[in-house]
Order: sequence, then C-alpha cells, then structure tokens
Amino acid sequence: MRIARPSDIEPKAMDMEGAHATAMRLLIGPDAGAPTFVMRMFEIEPGGHTPLHEHQWEHEVFVLDGEGEVVSPEGRTPLRPRTALFVAPGEKHQFVNAGSETLRFLCLIPLQVQSC
Amino acid sequence: MRIARPSDIEPKAMDMEGAHATAMRLLIGPDAGAPTFVMRMFEIEPGGHTPLHEHQWEHEVFVLDGEGEVVSPEGRTPLRPRTALFVAPGEKHQFVNAGSETLRFLCLIPLQVQSC
Repeated sequence: MRIARPSDIEPKAMDMEGAHATAMRLLIGPDAGAPTFVMRMFEIEPGGHTPLHEHQWEHEVFVLDGEGEVVSPEGRTPLRPRTALFVAPGEKHQFVNAGSETLRFLCLIPLQVQSC
Repeated sequence: MRIARPSDIEPKAMDMEGAHATAMRLLIGPDAGAPTFVMRMFEIEPGGHTPLHEHQWEHEVFVLDGEGEVVSPEGRTPLRPRTALFVAPGEKHQFVNAGSETLRFLCLIPLQVQSC
C-alpha cells in the first residue's frame, strides 16, 4: 500500500514536439508496483496544450481543475472539473487549456507503454 | 472518445457483506470500449465503509472529497482530497468515512475483474 501526494512528486515538463506549457507527475507507476496501468497527473498552464497526436493505447482522464478542451477530428469538446473522458486506442486527440487557470487532470494509461 | 459526467450516471449501492452506506458509479467501463482498466467513483456516506477484504487485483485510488481512512493490517492511514493510493494485489484493505461529509474517490481496477 502506498500513498502519493502530488505536491511531493516533482513535475516533469512534457518535451514532445507540439507540447507547450505542460507538465506531468507520475502518481502511481511501476516503482509503486503497479502491474496493469499507471496514474499520471497533467498540468497545462494557460495558453498551453499537449500535441495533437494518436497512439495505440487508451487514455482514461478525469478533470480536476480549470477549463479545457479536447480536440479531435470531430471538433472541440469542453472539459470542466469532474468530467471523465475515455480516448480509445487510435483516436487523434489534443488537450488544450481554454481558461485562465491551470488545467489539471488525471490521465491513466496501460503499463506497457511509457509515453503520453 | 466519450465524456462521462458522474451526475449523469446512476449510483449503485455496494451490496457486498461488510459494506455500509457505499455506492459506486461506473464512469469508464467496457461499454465505453475500455480495453485494459475501468474507472469507478465511490461515495461513502458518514459512518459508512467498504468491506475489509483482499483480492488478487490492484486498486489505484484518487481522493476527491471528504475525509477518510484506509484500514490495513499495518493500521489506519488518513485519506484526504488529492491523495493517490496504490493497493497492491493481495493486500487487505478497507475504506472508511472518518468525517461528516461524503467521502468520494476514484478507484480504478483492471478490466478482467468485475468486483470491488
């Protein structure tokens, strides 16, 4: 059993091409013993965004703070606190901060991938 | 891509022996297409608790509201909002509302199990 407080975990800037003003904290990962999936917290500052990209694994997202949008080929969908979002494998997506505060969300992925 | 707002999902009372005043909402599950793990939200009312139990799969928990404790053979660990908790497969655990408001948390499990 292991407790993790986000404030105790150093944020790591997301340095993928197309990312801007975005950082990630790994809350529950392989070093905690997670065998199937990992829990990360993302923080996107105002004006920031993740890359518009796709990959062969899913995201399970839960918004904690701020106002955002998820961009997909179908358009822009608003994200607000207490919204859950499932992004299926292969779906193109981008997270954008659409407000004036930090957009903060959990984003969980399967363990076998080590990316965003 | 699929959005789920907890308020749109009917809570289901947890009817396992040893559970009290606890309900669950399935936010992201097989019907959304989740291939690896599922996202549930638990709400434990004041005085309520989950069973003290163990099973062969992990929990990844993130506390949203309220004050709680996780009980294990090692004792009681406080849970407060913005705390992440990893419970390893085989670890005995119980979630208890230790406050006067609803204790609300996300609890994710691998897809192949359909229990708590």
